[in-house]
Amino acid sequence: MKKVSRSKVVYTFSPRHNPAERVKAGEEILLELEDAFGGQVKDEKTAIENLDWTKVNGVTGPVFIEDAEPGDTLAVQIVDVKLANRGVIAVIPKQGVLKDRPFKAKVKVVPISGGYVHFGKAKVKVNPMIGTIGVAPENGEHPTGTLGRHGGNMDVKEITRGATLYLPVFAKGALFAAGDLHAVQADGEACVSAVEVSGEVTLTFNILKGKNVSWPILETKDCYAVLTCGDSLDEACSWAVEEVVKALMQEHKWSFEEAYMFTSLVVDLKINQVVDPKKGVRAVIPKKYVSIESFCHAGFRH
Amino acid sequence: MKKVSRSKVVYTFSPRHNPAERVKAGEEILLELEDAFGGQVKDEKTAIENLDWTKVNGVTGPVFIEDAEPGDTLAVQIVDVKLANRGVIAVIPKQGVLKDRPFKAKVKVVPISGGYVHFGKAKVKVNPMIGTIGVAPENGEHPTGTLGRHGGNMDVKEITRGATLYLPVFAKGALFAAGDLHAVQADGEACVSAVEVSGEVTLTFNILKGKNVSWPILETKDCYAVLTCGDSLDEACSWAVEEVVKALMQEHKWSFEEAYMFTSLVVDLKINQVVDPKKGVRAVIPKKYVSIESFCHAGFRH
Repeated sequence: MKKVSRSKVVYTFSPRHNPAERVKAGEEILLELEDAFGGQVKDEKTAIENLDWTKVNGVTGPVFIEDAEPGDTLAVQIVDVKLANRGVIAVIPKQGVLKDRPFKAKVKVVPISGGYVHFGKAKVKVNPMIGTIGVAPENGEHPTGTLGRHGGNMDVKEITRGATLYLPVFAKGALFAAGDLHAVQADGEACVSAVEVSGEVTLTFNILKGKNVSWPILETKDCYAVLTCGDSLDEACSWAVEEVVKALMQEHKWSFEEAYMFTSLVVDLKINQVVDPKKGVRAVIPKKYVSIESFCHAGFRH
Repeated sequence: MKKVSRSKVVYTFSPRHNPAERVKAGEEILLELEDAFGGQVKDEKTAIENLDWTKVNGVTGPVFIEDAEPGDTLAVQIVDVKLANRGVIAVIPKQGVLKDRPFKAKVKVVPISGGYVHFGKAKVKVNPMIGTIGVAPENGEHPTGTLGRHGGNMDVKEITRGATLYLPVFAKGALFAAGDLHAVQADGEACVSAVEVSGEVTLTFNILKGKNVSWPILETKDCYAVLTCGDSLDEACSWAVEEVVKALMQEHKWSFEEAYMFTSLVVDLKINQVVDPKKGVRAVIPKKYVSIESFCHAGFRH
């Protein structure tokens, strides 16, 4: 199996990066991931405000997928996620949902063992997930701390072993990369960090030729989720609902009005994170009501 | 069992309403509920824009609970929810998440049978829930279409059989009322209506004397949820996180910083509805991490 070392790290999603590795559709690849703090937090005495902030939110890659071209969709299958045995959580003044409250910077190092994160006397079941995952955008450099139609720092807790993530391809070879592993994170990521941890992920890629999605689509066992973002949660919700309504119209040959009604009954609008410059939500719909094909279209439509 | 007819309807939560019925703690009561359109939608030819809008969003009550006084908490146990066999869904121009898109008013009448709502050829499993539920505020009149610390049009899909809702008491007797039954509604209530239906609910009340909650708290089998609102989802999230952080500090004797960190790991921020003048969210925390007592305080603290 091909392997990309954690030393192959970039801090933006960009069509200008040189590939760290090349794979074909169906070929397994393992990426080593550093934690979101770039491994700089050695212990609880580390002053979080003195980190080298040019070395945070790194993603391993990019991986060039043979035959992936602009206008295709890249299907990323998450075969496995393995975690190190210690994680780091931090609160940082002026960050998170309660950024307007006065509080101090604090770092906590937590052991991960037996399938649990040990937070003092409290135990929290591990859910290994990939916080940042995406492809190169069409132009420019997207910092890995943000998110968009190319993916990025989406912080979706279902991006884990067994899931498939569909991403629009904007650049030749897609230039895929991932980072920001979390041992556990709740919807919202309220304090701005989760249990940040290093580890490794095993992936395979497939290509839906000539089919395009407008936003990242996540497939889990029972559901599809449209992953959108906006300057507010409210704006992100409107993008997500619009995309689901279009898919339901295509799937069932319903009018806009019927699809809009049905969305109100079966599509859960969920919060991913509310603490990054762009807020992220997902619109979740059971697979029995829609197929991935109904989210796809020929060429770009946004 | 005492029973309140659907003719005993009010359109505001207010300390000035005369009680429709009186009950003691522990006594069962049945409320008949009209649907949110006040039963005015007779068939799919009904012009939704011509409804008498002074007759929508009615709630049955109010019920005076003996011995409930300002500064107490009212615990409402939802013993049963029964639905009629037809529901109504409507889309209304300039309403819902996609209010800026052009579309037409439309009404759909759906049969409810065998535990399913039948939407054309699509079947959706029924989840009978109470959309509007609350008590009188301290002052003034709160229209039943809105929500606040007194409850109201919260549209939380877990407010259903078996759940307990804790509400702060502001007026003598609490003056409880409920309405806006939904046969099924997804988180977000994207198009502004769910499957609106008439029916009846059976409830009992208990009083936590001298203990006060700042926001409605919902208890389900495994979790507590703080139900907040704001002018945006983002604002509602900050109220919800603040309340959970306070409860975790009280429960575990943690610092603000530790409680804020833990919230990021175990508290899911979920969307209730994003389509009313005030947006509603819930912060959901497993019961194993907090007790209802930690959400309570003596006297008002907001």
